[in-house]
Amino acid sequence: MDAYARDVDVEPANSTSTVVFPRICIIGMGLVGGSLARALRQAGACREIVGCDLSEERLNEALQLNAIDSGATDMASAVRDADAVVLAAPVGAMPALFESLKKCVSPTTIITDVGSTKGSIVDAAQRVFDGLPENFVPGHPLAGGENSGVGYSDPELFVGCNVILTPLPTTNCEAVHQVRRMWQQVGANVFEMTVSRHDEILGATSHLPHILAYLLVDILASNKKKDELFRYTAGGFRDFTRIASSDPGLWCDISLANRAVIAGMLGHYGEALGRMAKAIDEGDRAAITAVFTRAKMARDQGVLVQDGG
Amino acid sequence: MDAYARDVDVEPANSTSTVVFPRICIIGMGLVGGSLARALRQAGACREIVGCDLSEERLNEALQLNAIDSGATDMASAVRDADAVVLAAPVGAMPALFESLKKCVSPTTIITDVGSTKGSIVDAAQRVFDGLPENFVPGHPLAGGENSGVGYSDPELFVGCNVILTPLPTTNCEAVHQVRRMWQQVGANVFEMTVSRHDEILGATSHLPHILAYLLVDILASNKKKDELFRYTAGGFRDFTRIASSDPGLWCDISLANRAVIAGMLGHYGEALGRMAKAIDEGDRAAITAVFTRAKMARDQGVLVQDGG
Repeated sequence: MDAYARDVDVEPANSTSTVVFPRICIIGMGLVGGSLARALRQAGACREIVGCDLSEERLNEALQLNAIDSGATDMASAVRDADAVVLAAPVGAMPALFESLKKCVSPTTIITDVGSTKGSIVDAAQRVFDGLPENFVPGHPLAGGENSGVGYSDPELFVGCNVILTPLPTTNCEAVHQVRRMWQQVGANVFEMTVSRHDEILGATSHLPHILAYLLVDILASNKKKDELFRYTAGGFRDFTRIASSDPGLWCDISLANRAVIAGMLGHYGEALGRMAKAIDEGDRAAITAVFTRAKMARDQGVLVQDGG
Repeated sequence: MDAYARDVDVEPANSTSTVVFPRICIIGMGLVGGSLARALRQAGACREIVGCDLSEERLNEALQLNAIDSGATDMASAVRDADAVVLAAPVGAMPALFESLKKCVSPTTIITDVGSTKGSIVDAAQRVFDGLPENFVPGHPLAGGENSGVGYSDPELFVGCNVILTPLPTTNCEAVHQVRRMWQQVGANVFEMTVSRHDEILGATSHLPHILAYLLVDILASNKKKDELFRYTAGGFRDFTRIASSDPGLWCDISLANRAVIAGMLGHYGEALGRMAKAIDEGDRAAITAVFTRAKMARDQGVLVQDGG
């Protein structure tokens, strides 16, 4: 704990200094990792930003964007002397990253991640490290989109964005505090909740919508006259299906990582779909309008709350 | 046919004059009716634009926006001497509008509409007029959105927008030609297809997505902790559910007007949902990735075709 304690000593929680982690290592130079690197640089939240990625091309792209000070394909040299390591990789890559990290990371280094599911990642960390490291703070910035790659990175990506941290009872609260500060420095609103609550909420508001959008587009694509179908789409369809342009492998991993929650949601959804089909078939105007009206009210109110902060 | 023939005589099809209908009457001063009025004015496609609406308030709003030259709540005076009448009203209102129109419209006046379903509207016209008027050109501009009202009207709404006309074999082809010219003057791309093909395509690309979005938001809204759910939504969710803010009554009417097509689509969708739930439950990575990959490819290609014209 010495290195970490010294850091806290030099820069107490109420410090006005913007430096949160003098040396940070970001593993994964994709959209989120690249954006975080550039946002931290812009905020002056780190003195040195090291990128780690298996692809030299991506590291070079990140260097050209001045996102990172140096890059390494070798994790051991990338994380050396890092005050914090951010795992900015897809959910499915996390177990292997933990395996590599275990061999080289100092127990005093703060570890956090940006994965879209938290239960599966916490389980993987627990399994690999033989118990959850007390300096591991599971996290998830609700940012990103259907584009991927450092080429789409944006230093403003996290401004006004919600970041959820899911510390466990055993997590070092100073580590949580520092990770919170890091996200706040790049403009995010940081919330804490339990792992299971995170996975329920994201299952409903992100994982289920992605699956529904993929299913719709796949059905249309299997139509004999699909070219004609896609020709006559309007803005509503493009918005509705935008998330179906997301990375298929990533979303397969997420679907399986949060499968218990998603299975329940798909079940509920299928039942509601059946009820609606029946109402339409029977011309039950009251039942149809009730669903549509409740949805419109919730959506309008929910989005007002959301957009208004 | 005299009045109409004279018009054609004065302004032949290859005329460079922008005037398509010297006097037009637009029934319904909502988003689409108001936008069409303003777009026609801007294009110089009409010499006189008369608005008709049951609400004096909406007519005054349209007058203030200079969308119309005059307004009337009484249909008989609104359509008098009109070269064309555009029914810019929700699908559910069409039968009653045809009843009123029948009493006052000249057989030489061209009639068109902007309704989201075509089979139900053609049926209604056939029933009310005791056979389809040869100057009635069923139409549907794929424009609009979750907002309604002339206050949201936009003279550029139809620029680059697709408009589908569904003339029947008995429809006067000069009437079709004039309605096509009208939409082209306001910047739209005009296509012709059969009534049933229109309803199949729109059922798949518009009606089904609206129902799916309403169902998702309604399920989330019925969650005990809905405020928390909506608090942590990101851009993908907002895009996906935007269409669930559409007018519930209008979409109930559309769902029932196109119920045969929609029932089939909901059935297909329910089956696909069941297969996906099974694949996720069984951890069938190949099956999940196949759906997601096909969808992403189709979406990316479809949207390229769409956006690139």
